[in-house]
Amino acid sequence: MSLQLYFAPGACSFVPHCLLELSGATFEPKMVKLHKGEQYEAAYQAINPRGQVPVLVDGDQAVTQIVAITLYLDEKFPQCGFLPASGMARAKALETLAWMNNSVHPTFTHVFLPQKFSPDAGVQADIKANAIKAYKALMGELQNLVAQATQAGHPWLGGAHIGALDAYALTLARWGTIAGVGPQDFPALWDYVEKVAANETIAKVIARERLQLNLMAGS
Amino acid sequence: MSLQLYFAPGACSFVPHCLLELSGATFEPKMVKLHKGEQYEAAYQAINPRGQVPVLVDGDQAVTQIVAITLYLDEKFPQCGFLPASGMARAKALETLAWMNNSVHPTFTHVFLPQKFSPDAGVQADIKANAIKAYKALMGELQNLVAQATQAGHPWLGGAHIGALDAYALTLARWGTIAGVGPQDFPALWDYVEKVAANETIAKVIARERLQLNLMAGS
Repeated sequence: MSLQLYFAPGACSFVPHCLLELSGATFEPKMVKLHKGEQYEAAYQAINPRGQVPVLVDGDQAVTQIVAITLYLDEKFPQCGFLPASGMARAKALETLAWMNNSVHPTFTHVFLPQKFSPDAGVQADIKANAIKAYKALMGELQNLVAQATQAGHPWLGGAHIGALDAYALTLARWGTIAGVGPQDFPALWDYVEKVAANETIAKVIARERLQLNLMAGS
Repeated sequence: MSLQLYFAPGACSFVPHCLLELSGATFEPKMVKLHKGEQYEAAYQAINPRGQVPVLVDGDQAVTQIVAITLYLDEKFPQCGFLPASGMARAKALETLAWMNNSVHPTFTHVFLPQKFSPDAGVQADIKANAIKAYKALMGELQNLVAQATQAGHPWLGGAHIGALDAYALTLARWGTIAGVGPQDFPALWDYVEKVAANETIAKVIARERLQLNLMAGS
């Protein structure tokens, strides 16, 4: 078995990066320098023609997409409990994972890459300003999900074990600080983010990716 | 066991609608009239505060999100093979499902609901025009995925069985025709869409939702 993860520091590839580290398996983290355009080079395009991170390579096969990689690692390392094992508990965790992936994440794309949606600078500025408002509302929803998990007696968003939802929540909340949405707006969410970050294994990944949690706080 | 599906004709709820019909289980299809704003009424908000379809109700619990509902139904009806059972084959199918859900679907939202991204009419027109170009490129990717499945000897996008990817592909291709992207651009994709639509069970769902496949073709 040979596992490799193509990741970029601070990108959503943080999610499988954490899962692999939590699994205890040997894997090779391979950094992709998005700011240098490495994702557009022929070598990377051969691995993922969409030019995105993450990519998980297992032996001679590769898979992309957070949701697919999370479910693959959950199947490969069932003892880790990255997601609830079955039934409606599993479905509800996947509901949140899908929402993070198809609603929160794409909303932030409008903040970070408004040029994806129009070549016009004025349109881009308008898109970005509106997306920041939308993102703030979504962080409110995320804070509510954290509160619901706590009320249900769950230590982590997915239930008993730290997993994909926690790593994704940290990533999405961290991105918010690029747009000025942070602990001052959602203190309970950030208490949770700091609890996730304090986990010994997650902390190791944060150190490897050299991440500052709150990007408004200075360097 | 009491299964209910909240759906809107032609929406992405077509995916679980097809899966439920394919399962052979008894379920109650409950139509939500989005054009009449029923999703904002208190009764529906109590079921899904995000005001979206689909919602699957199983007994006294409800779950939203195509990805979560698909995986829940796949677990409940394993004999249907809605997704490959395990390993990298399953991961690759989930990769495509996630891509449809977080890339293709949200791109069409910019065509159908540009007002979600800006209150400015000029900005909305620009967003929509750019999204139609992006959607056309994504339909090209989808057509390539169909070609790859055929080359691999698979009768359906997910492999041996008709399932979530086929119903979603039909839905996304059909949406394209609202924006003028259709069979004239992607004949091989549309040959596939018509093959999916000709499946006896899928045809039953198309009839229940009263769908016209190609919305450019007149009524």
